[in-house]
Amino acid sequence: MAQTLDRLQQDHIQRLLAAYRTLMQQHGLDAIALYSGHALPHYGDDQYPNFKAAGHFVHWSPLFEAQHSWLVITPNAKPRLLLHAPTDFWHLTPTLPDEPWVGEFDVELVNEPATPALQGNVALIGDVDALQQGPVALPHGEANPPALVAALDELRMHKSAYEIACLREANRLAMAGHEAAQAAFAGAGAELDIQLAYLGASRQRESHVPYDNIVGLNQHAGVLHYQHYDLHPPAGRYSLLVDAGRRFRGYCSDITRTWAGPDAPTLFAELIKAVHELKDTLIARIAPDVDYVELQRAMHRQLGEILVRHDLYHGSASDCVASGVTRAFCPHGVGHSLGIQVHDIAGLKAPDATPAPPPEEHPALRLTRKLTPGMVVTIEPGLYFIPMLLDPLRDTGAPINWPLVEQLMPCGGIRIEDNVAVTDTGHDNLTL
Amino acid sequence: MAQTLDRLQQDHIQRLLAAYRTLMQQHGLDAIALYSGHALPHYGDDQYPNFKAAGHFVHWSPLFEAQHSWLVITPNAKPRLLLHAPTDFWHLTPTLPDEPWVGEFDVELVNEPATPALQGNVALIGDVDALQQGPVALPHGEANPPALVAALDELRMHKSAYEIACLREANRLAMAGHEAAQAAFAGAGAELDIQLAYLGASRQRESHVPYDNIVGLNQHAGVLHYQHYDLHPPAGRYSLLVDAGRRFRGYCSDITRTWAGPDAPTLFAELIKAVHELKDTLIARIAPDVDYVELQRAMHRQLGEILVRHDLYHGSASDCVASGVTRAFCPHGVGHSLGIQVHDIAGLKAPDATPAPPPEEHPALRLTRKLTPGMVVTIEPGLYFIPMLLDPLRDTGAPINWPLVEQLMPCGGIRIEDNVAVTDTGHDNLTL
Repeated sequence: MAQTLDRLQQDHIQRLLAAYRTLMQQHGLDAIALYSGHALPHYGDDQYPNFKAAGHFVHWSPLFEAQHSWLVITPNAKPRLLLHAPTDFWHLTPTLPDEPWVGEFDVELVNEPATPALQGNVALIGDVDALQQGPVALPHGEANPPALVAALDELRMHKSAYEIACLREANRLAMAGHEAAQAAFAGAGAELDIQLAYLGASRQRESHVPYDNIVGLNQHAGVLHYQHYDLHPPAGRYSLLVDAGRRFRGYCSDITRTWAGPDAPTLFAELIKAVHELKDTLIARIAPDVDYVELQRAMHRQLGEILVRHDLYHGSASDCVASGVTRAFCPHGVGHSLGIQVHDIAGLKAPDATPAPPPEEHPALRLTRKLTPGMVVTIEPGLYFIPMLLDPLRDTGAPINWPLVEQLMPCGGIRIEDNVAVTDTGHDNLTL
Repeated sequence: MAQTLDRLQQDHIQRLLAAYRTLMQQHGLDAIALYSGHALPHYGDDQYPNFKAAGHFVHWSPLFEAQHSWLVITPNAKPRLLLHAPTDFWHLTPTLPDEPWVGEFDVELVNEPATPALQGNVALIGDVDALQQGPVALPHGEANPPALVAALDELRMHKSAYEIACLREANRLAMAGHEAAQAAFAGAGAELDIQLAYLGASRQRESHVPYDNIVGLNQHAGVLHYQHYDLHPPAGRYSLLVDAGRRFRGYCSDITRTWAGPDAPTLFAELIKAVHELKDTLIARIAPDVDYVELQRAMHRQLGEILVRHDLYHGSASDCVASGVTRAFCPHGVGHSLGIQVHDIAGLKAPDATPAPPPEEHPALRLTRKLTPGMVVTIEPGLYFIPMLLDPLRDTGAPINWPLVEQLMPCGGIRIEDNVAVTDTGHDNLTL
């Protein structure tokens, strides 16, 4: 695979270079300088939070931890990488990997944070404001011109074959983590133990994950962005929801699995199976020209059917959707664009960068486009038992089977999520 | 222990309140408002780095993850805690622990970040600048008046019985991690596996550690702030250095242990023993009125003796020190102040807040005071084989046993570190 990936990466860089050169011509620019960014210490402290290099910088280079570094793209020369690689005995000096992409750049390793020498009309892209608090002068150029930034964001919406290969590898590595998490759940581990098992099997440290892993036991499975890892295992074991990914060369996977525990009612395992099938049905529809908002609506129609079929709603599936009941069982979007960021940019913009907000009844949807080849999206239907959302329905007379809902409450909820590339003719599930 | 800790904490808060009230009188203030701070997302992304609440906020409250929250101290009323606790279905709503310290405050839980209503002469303490980028108005008051900040910093230099109990517990929890790390090293784990074993046994996630754990195998043990966790175990197993702590109610432990692997020369294990003894000898000297800079000098004298005794230096121990050779074998300080921050503040200031820089020949020393009861310090002698520091000595004719040094090079280095409280009559090793 390594050789193929190397070749694909060289193609990717050449493709990027061509696109950037077209943009420089369109915007009358002599150079685009991409800043990696840098971390600032915690307030009043000498320790630093975790850091990730800016997305447009990583679009060119897999150095997703690089700080104080620049990439300079010009119309006629090789891209130039000014990599901060301090030589001191306090830290291990960064070295470049022995990979052929390095040959695509003119690389300069610099000991101190440095400002690239730039001339003419230059666009500076990245967290240039942060430089104003540091010892390094701001380079010559205009910071983040909005029209150019929008065009660069748009470039990232469609992935090259290299990027899709990276996303596939990020999926493969994450799946090993999900298997280990399931085993740790079977072993009655606490959320912390399940999280550490996930990290160990997916071979990553917490500060490198694409987003904070969600590891929720029991009712925590119904907290959509549950943010803790309990240190103690709960008394009952109803459910485990793990929403966790992995970065590979800066590209993110974002996978969710839900498992029924020994104390869950049989119905919960059946509902997990139904949501898996719902996920597969939605993925089967993915193809060029499909409207992603329509997938959101399809998810709700099928959630209505699931609620009726499993005796949770005593009425028709269409009434269940129309009355907003499915939205109380699943308040989030069917998915989002995926790439260097877990919620990749430009999902709520049309290709011409005009705003494309989500429909009023689905405010949490993060992608509103028609799908086109090269897009990579998540598909993540969910079904939750969240008191804060369901309780208001109790007084509406909605024909919900409350005793059954009560039985499911300790299970929190279900989400199943894969990552899917749109191809020329259909789709490619990267999670398989 | 819990009951004692509760009582100690109530005393701690009362003691703090008295000190703050004296300061308000001295500085002509009607209130001091402490801001916890808040995290900003990664640049151009919707994901957040890890966060820690500002030190002066944590000095009052163990809520070291609290964001968008305020503590308001006034001369006559109970301290007021304005705790941001958003109620939504995306996150688990923060709740206050069932601990009696909560009764020492007037607590208000707020759903949205809020600004406390303040009147008169008010000092705002914390990362108030960050508020200017947020939706919340800056409260009335003067941000971080330097004389007051210096006095608050100084308050943190001497720990109450409660704080020392927290630091002792942070040590106890961390030691379980060190034992697990040693076991993972015996099991030939990669650095990542050793790190995860440490986290599992010390019951913490990476984003809660007081500082990035240093887990260095072989030559990485000689990289003082080694910042990676290799995913693959090395071929040879010479050494493991683990420098890692734990937070307990916001208070940090900072412990280092070094282990010899099966491939290390016998001498390396003997040197580890010698550095352990050096650590104990230095701790034995800790008492009120001892000059911490003198401990730094004592460390070098004894390092000279160790180098002579183990045939690494063919000359006198005093020559070894005078010629700077011991500094090439140990370039860092003997330790630092420890508390809510791992390198606790005000270590390089005299009690009257005037600068107290380290001696010219020991620029990395982080504490330059005479010890007084209530201070908590680390004692962390080291002995390293760092090519970048030793190579320049090769041409000086220094009588170093280079063949022996070469044998030790694959081991990287040794550091042994405990945490010690200064008592009225001597010291109390919190790591035991």
